[in-house]
Amino acid sequence: MAIISQSRRLRRTPFSDGVEAAGVKGYTVYNRMLLPTVFRSVVEDYHHLKNAVQIWDVSAERQIELRGPDAARLMQMLTPRDLRGMQLGQCFYIPIVDETGGMINDPVALKLAEDRWWISIADSDMLLWVKGLAYGYRLDVLVDEPDVSPLAIQGPKADDLMARVFGDAVRNIKFFRFGWFDFQGSSMAVARSGYSKQGGFEIYVDGTENGMPLWNALMEAGKDLDVHAGCPNGIERIEAGLLSYGNDMTRANTPHEAGLGRFCSTQTAIGCVGRDALLRVAKEGPTQQVRPISIAGEIPFCDRAWPIMAGSRKVGQVTSAAASPDYGTGVAIGMVKMTHWDEGTQLRVETPDGPLEATVLENFWI
Amino acid sequence: MAIISQSRRLRRTPFSDGVEAAGVKGYTVYNRMLLPTVFRSVVEDYHHLKNAVQIWDVSAERQIELRGPDAARLMQMLTPRDLRGMQLGQCFYIPIVDETGGMINDPVALKLAEDRWWISIADSDMLLWVKGLAYGYRLDVLVDEPDVSPLAIQGPKADDLMARVFGDAVRNIKFFRFGWFDFQGSSMAVARSGYSKQGGFEIYVDGTENGMPLWNALMEAGKDLDVHAGCPNGIERIEAGLLSYGNDMTRANTPHEAGLGRFCSTQTAIGCVGRDALLRVAKEGPTQQVRPISIAGEIPFCDRAWPIMAGSRKVGQVTSAAASPDYGTGVAIGMVKMTHWDEGTQLRVETPDGPLEATVLENFWI
Repeated sequence: MAIISQSRRLRRTPFSDGVEAAGVKGYTVYNRMLLPTVFRSVVEDYHHLKNAVQIWDVSAERQIELRGPDAARLMQMLTPRDLRGMQLGQCFYIPIVDETGGMINDPVALKLAEDRWWISIADSDMLLWVKGLAYGYRLDVLVDEPDVSPLAIQGPKADDLMARVFGDAVRNIKFFRFGWFDFQGSSMAVARSGYSKQGGFEIYVDGTENGMPLWNALMEAGKDLDVHAGCPNGIERIEAGLLSYGNDMTRANTPHEAGLGRFCSTQTAIGCVGRDALLRVAKEGPTQQVRPISIAGEIPFCDRAWPIMAGSRKVGQVTSAAASPDYGTGVAIGMVKMTHWDEGTQLRVETPDGPLEATVLENFWI
Repeated sequence: MAIISQSRRLRRTPFSDGVEAAGVKGYTVYNRMLLPTVFRSVVEDYHHLKNAVQIWDVSAERQIELRGPDAARLMQMLTPRDLRGMQLGQCFYIPIVDETGGMINDPVALKLAEDRWWISIADSDMLLWVKGLAYGYRLDVLVDEPDVSPLAIQGPKADDLMARVFGDAVRNIKFFRFGWFDFQGSSMAVARSGYSKQGGFEIYVDGTENGMPLWNALMEAGKDLDVHAGCPNGIERIEAGLLSYGNDMTRANTPHEAGLGRFCSTQTAIGCVGRDALLRVAKEGPTQQVRPISIAGEIPFCDRAWPIMAGSRKVGQVTSAAASPDYGTGVAIGMVKMTHWDEGTQLRVETPDGPLEATVLENFWI
């Protein structure tokens, strides 16, 4: 196991002191920022996430703020999802594509005002893409990365913990909606969202100086709820079919290949970059698509794409995999050609440790 | 020390198998790709780099290719450096700035043909910026990331090693020039360049399949030269004053603040993004600038910016620091306000382990 060499370039977060005090054991790098990956062990963290409540430093979901008269126009340029019906206080999961329809991010957009939006990004420099478009089109919009760092509260006891710090009104926040809540005099957006299927919230912590006070307040308030520092869990997110940009889809894939066709209203998303390419894809349908795949046997560490074989023919690749304690099988996400993507298809996955038997499923586990 | 959690998203390189076989102990992540940071120890690697020859997997310096009738126009949009005099086979270090003159990368550009260029990038998604501009301006140019991965050969014996694999003609390559050389039937650009001051080359390895054969050929040919796997060295690069984008300068800084004013011909770089802002900066001069700083005492690990103080006043920050075996002092790079940037100024650096005495120098050590 190699260590991660830290430097200023791999940015610390407003919560890094708390993360270290909680005994973080592993990191990944996400948007050039440290993102914890394991505290006690991945399996221990997994069981705890499903039974209690965790505080996650997901500052690496950086915000891109669009503000100004052309903000809404620029937002619609970014995504094939039709944003016209989006209301203030709503969160939208939006695929972002380049001019060829290739995915370059899959963020969550927040509509703060008619002329003010946040994009809570996955792992690619959306700031540069959005600024490049704004500059090229001479749009009247300010694009920047504000000092806002999401902190996720995830797990079945998330509502109880949040109510103790922000008041009972947080219980009324609907899924993929956000409201404004006070913490020690600062107003923060709190959304019912997060990168797990265990329920919970994301607090958009405004101002680095508010990071550790909030972290500590949540830890203190949740002692009897068995609150613990956590992070997106590599097993749970696969069970839940939560895709990871850069792992399960890249610029090589359209949203339709990623199974995100339902978020593409390409006909009506007038002005969106990549529209011509996606109209073609929507008409013909993808020739490969993301599928849940169960794998039998010992699952190695998935640090690269594993070929999926039908006999001697490559028909796809596994991009994320883990052993699931709760389901007693290897759980995986893969991209499979249409000739072999039907439920129940038996295939072979070529891992660095040798071949394993695999089955295409219809639905993810959670 | 936390481990790095590997995943497909943190891309492996064509040389990763060789890097692992050589016993890599640490990684950083650079352009969402694994970049080794230490093999034996940082100090052992440092001495070896200065005395022998090393093979560096710097695939993380990804290439952005610009190709087509508008490629040259787009290149000049990207940088305040005047590219009109640039010849085929030449490498140019080019600051890239946004519309406010803030640095968003500091790559090396290679001119392959009048209508074909590579940008060998530092750590930010230049692909998205360049594509965004090309799209916004409706330029007739193809922008992509080719399957090209640089392998650096660095150290005083680099010429000897390279000559054994590519022939004696490599000895004639001038500094920041490149030529085309054959390896097992593939033609590859070889430049005299690299992120050390010990001399050497960068091979732009074309095609993942050529990676390990070339790695192995170099290792085999250099046995009696004490060749070893290496990587950019955290001590040597500070001694040499080689800046690191993301560490020593960010989007908050102009090229002039980074001491790169000599690469800005803003008057004549017609069409470059950020020109208005930089003309202003060039006229008034920067109010803070990168400086070599020597630090007395035990140097902690520099994983965040350290405030530089004059009494109770913050006058700058140290962004990279290490203990130098050869110079017997702490060597550092910092950004210092003009009121305190003169040679010999005595200052105090606030590290997480406590304050240390520091001195502003005129020149870097190497």
